[in-house]
Amino acid sequence: MELWYTEKQTENVGITCKVLNTLHVEKTEFQGLAVIETLQFGRMLVLDGMVQTTIKDEFVYHEMITHVPLNSHPNPRNVLVIGGGDGGAIREIVKHPLVERATLVEIDRRVVEVSREYLPEISCGLDNPKVTVIYDDGIKHVKDNPDTYDVIMVDSTEPVGPAVELFSGSFYSSIFKALKEDGLFVAQTESPFFNADLITNCHKEISRAFPITKLYLASVPTYPSGLWSFTMGSKKYDPESPASAAPGYPTRYYTPGVHKGAFMLPKFVEELVK
Amino acid sequence: MELWYTEKQTENVGITCKVLNTLHVEKTEFQGLAVIETLQFGRMLVLDGMVQTTIKDEFVYHEMITHVPLNSHPNPRNVLVIGGGDGGAIREIVKHPLVERATLVEIDRRVVEVSREYLPEISCGLDNPKVTVIYDDGIKHVKDNPDTYDVIMVDSTEPVGPAVELFSGSFYSSIFKALKEDGLFVAQTESPFFNADLITNCHKEISRAFPITKLYLASVPTYPSGLWSFTMGSKKYDPESPASAAPGYPTRYYTPGVHKGAFMLPKFVEELVK
Repeated sequence: MELWYTEKQTENVGITCKVLNTLHVEKTEFQGLAVIETLQFGRMLVLDGMVQTTIKDEFVYHEMITHVPLNSHPNPRNVLVIGGGDGGAIREIVKHPLVERATLVEIDRRVVEVSREYLPEISCGLDNPKVTVIYDDGIKHVKDNPDTYDVIMVDSTEPVGPAVELFSGSFYSSIFKALKEDGLFVAQTESPFFNADLITNCHKEISRAFPITKLYLASVPTYPSGLWSFTMGSKKYDPESPASAAPGYPTRYYTPGVHKGAFMLPKFVEELVK
Repeated sequence: MELWYTEKQTENVGITCKVLNTLHVEKTEFQGLAVIETLQFGRMLVLDGMVQTTIKDEFVYHEMITHVPLNSHPNPRNVLVIGGGDGGAIREIVKHPLVERATLVEIDRRVVEVSREYLPEISCGLDNPKVTVIYDDGIKHVKDNPDTYDVIMVDSTEPVGPAVELFSGSFYSSIFKALKEDGLFVAQTESPFFNADLITNCHKEISRAFPITKLYLASVPTYPSGLWSFTMGSKKYDPESPASAAPGYPTRYYTPGVHKGAFMLPKFVEELVK
């Protein structure tokens, strides 16, 4: 018997992957959670039927949501990740020599627990002594911690279910307050090919809160359309002029050249945010 | 009834698209040829079961296979496209103000005829007075035309069936001879995620013939993994220092910034070609 997992990425297009094994399926308090083993991408974390991360291509997303903001800030000592319960962003953050403390605030404890069990290559950074894991609502956490963080990453799911509020103007205002006076943040903001309106709206809302707002891109094969966007809001530093010339730690996607190139937007993407 | 077209892009992963209509299906002298109407990407040209181009995302591939080499050459007057029977590359080439003559050499006359009928938005450039269409073997054509072209684009199908020889060292030597003394060429060289060996081999073979060999990337949602590579061989001009600062004609993906950014390779891609 051949088993294939198909995610309908929109109403009209999907990705389909040959599956070796279903390793875990549950309904948590917040969402459907599954880990399947695919032949093309290895083990795959699926939330509410949407691919979140896979062993083979997770490095792109996790390096690009972390090393671009970290290297845009001259002194990223205290860092917050909202969401990101798989631990991939944390694993990258603790590579940075200036980071002293990394806090993960994940609403769904089961994402962390299941990732620790089935995705150790991704979750391994969670055991680093610099890391604190808090199971709480990220919106509440940023409201309760003003003037605290140098860099914040919003590593959320798609804007359905528990993540809807993470794409709102009031959340971006709270993020602004939770950052120190020279802080910056990044949010994953979906595909320019399939989610043009979302990108335009996020950019507009973030621009209302932050003096510097910039979009950048990376190629993630298992995400809809394969092209993914991230939007940064910054109080002081321009992410297109990175603070550090070379990361000085191992990466598989990120380089100083990729950092610069990621902001060189295709014409149709430029037009979404102008 | 819901009709879905699924292309297995590798043995273990596929793209699946909801289909409104099958517009055309035939077996030509060279390959299977179909045009289907999908909801996500509009009309789609399929050769031997592989998506070649779609109305919605064709602009990326066609702009990037043409404007990067054209703007890397200070005087691209005489241009050759091998393959590319849909006409998309030609439509872009004739936008360039310095191009005086564009020749398309397509082995399969039916690709041109069917594209003219079902994909007029893509094939429209074929009627431009600068354009000559020749139905012949591209390998023979370059052998028969030494010291002729400023720029050559190899707009081939995947390296199966009629296109296998278009990925060989002897073909790259023939291309070198068909170019003028300051000529350059580009070939589509598949996905860095799924075709790493092919990229490494093409780069090695092209380096044997050309003093300057450079890889660049673009995001095409309907191509395997969504990330596509192009390899340039150049006798004189470095494509990373484009000859023209701004294209001066309308594009939807290409910009001078995209031109530079496309050569800023992710670490794992850099390693494929070093």
